[in-house]
Amino acid sequence: MGAKSAETRARILEAAMDLFRRQGFEETTMREIAAEAGVATGAAYYYFDSKDAIALAFYDQAQQDLEPLLAQALAGPQTLRDRLSALLEVKLRYFAPNRRLLGALAAHADPEHPLSPFSQQTRQIRERDVESFARALAGSGIRLPRDLSPQLPRLLWMYQMGLILFWIYDRSPAQRRTAGLIARSAAIVERLVKLAAFPPMRPVRRMVVELMQSVSEDS
Amino acid sequence: MGAKSAETRARILEAAMDLFRRQGFEETTMREIAAEAGVATGAAYYYFDSKDAIALAFYDQAQQDLEPLLAQALAGPQTLRDRLSALLEVKLRYFAPNRRLLGALAAHADPEHPLSPFSQQTRQIRERDVESFARALAGSGIRLPRDLSPQLPRLLWMYQMGLILFWIYDRSPAQRRTAGLIARSAAIVERLVKLAAFPPMRPVRRMVVELMQSVSEDS
Repeated sequence: MGAKSAETRARILEAAMDLFRRQGFEETTMREIAAEAGVATGAAYYYFDSKDAIALAFYDQAQQDLEPLLAQALAGPQTLRDRLSALLEVKLRYFAPNRRLLGALAAHADPEHPLSPFSQQTRQIRERDVESFARALAGSGIRLPRDLSPQLPRLLWMYQMGLILFWIYDRSPAQRRTAGLIARSAAIVERLVKLAAFPPMRPVRRMVVELMQSVSEDS
Repeated sequence: MGAKSAETRARILEAAMDLFRRQGFEETTMREIAAEAGVATGAAYYYFDSKDAIALAFYDQAQQDLEPLLAQALAGPQTLRDRLSALLEVKLRYFAPNRRLLGALAAHADPEHPLSPFSQQTRQIRERDVESFARALAGSGIRLPRDLSPQLPRLLWMYQMGLILFWIYDRSPAQRRTAGLIARSAAIVERLVKLAAFPPMRPVRRMVVELMQSVSEDS
């Protein structure tokens, strides 16, 4: 893509995000997006064949933007709970201006919907996001049981999805309830991950690993 | 409510459910529901002031219908895993004809939406549903730690909500994947509940209890 072309694409994406925030995702048309960006409707379709494609481009952009911020957030904290808190805080702060938009998109839990966090279309984004939890774990100094280790980043990713859902509908000032939930739950997660290595936990650990494997094999 | 009145109300509810299943919840109007039930639109509004009210009446009806079925399902099995499986199986079998409709309603995770499973409007239904888990626990013979005991039914209810979400979008034949997930996860839940009583689990147990308390106090 040439510089001019990349610039136009970025302008359309930005105009779309503006409109989505102001008037809602469902309520916005490609025609309006093109007008807002100052391009012909056909030109908008040249770059994005649908609003869904724009939303996916937003997810993708977010991931690129977050990469250095996450690296920075994970540079300091040592304990798993602090690393998880830092990681989640950075993500939520980044998405805060689009919290309501995420609410509209979060309605798609159906894995067959392109914008679902569980869809084929978001797979690559999801896998890279799971990676961020692998990094949070790696620097924590906790020795992970061998069987659990490959599954744990994905388990933590699911934990994150639950927190994000809570955050989207958190109407407390500055989403204070979510902050409290993150602090408390991250401490619990750290404790459970440490406990998972103890011999009496072995049977339940194996059951969890097998459950995770069976779910991902099926899909 | 007189017998005639109750009969009319039931007829409207049934007509509405038929239409919701056939053409979708969002796509159905009160006018169509009235026509399908053979009553004037005004009469339909006399019994239900909105489609949301009809959906809530359906939830309510479901709970009444399920009561004896759940009692029966819990009469046999002894272990917690079997009791949980039996309870979930009965509920999913009951809702199976309306699985797609539940998908449409499940889009409302927002606690401020009347049809959300977390809303004020569904509170009573939710509390009675939580009760079914208290009964599943009570008959299992597992001695529950005192601090965890009051919170556990609610934790299990959340576990159920996760399973229901999985089931709604489960496209495997006869939702076989969900059946597998229930069997595996119920065994894990049983193991964790038993482990929770062990002394080394005490700190994490307390953290979970405090988390649950803080979330329900806030709301």
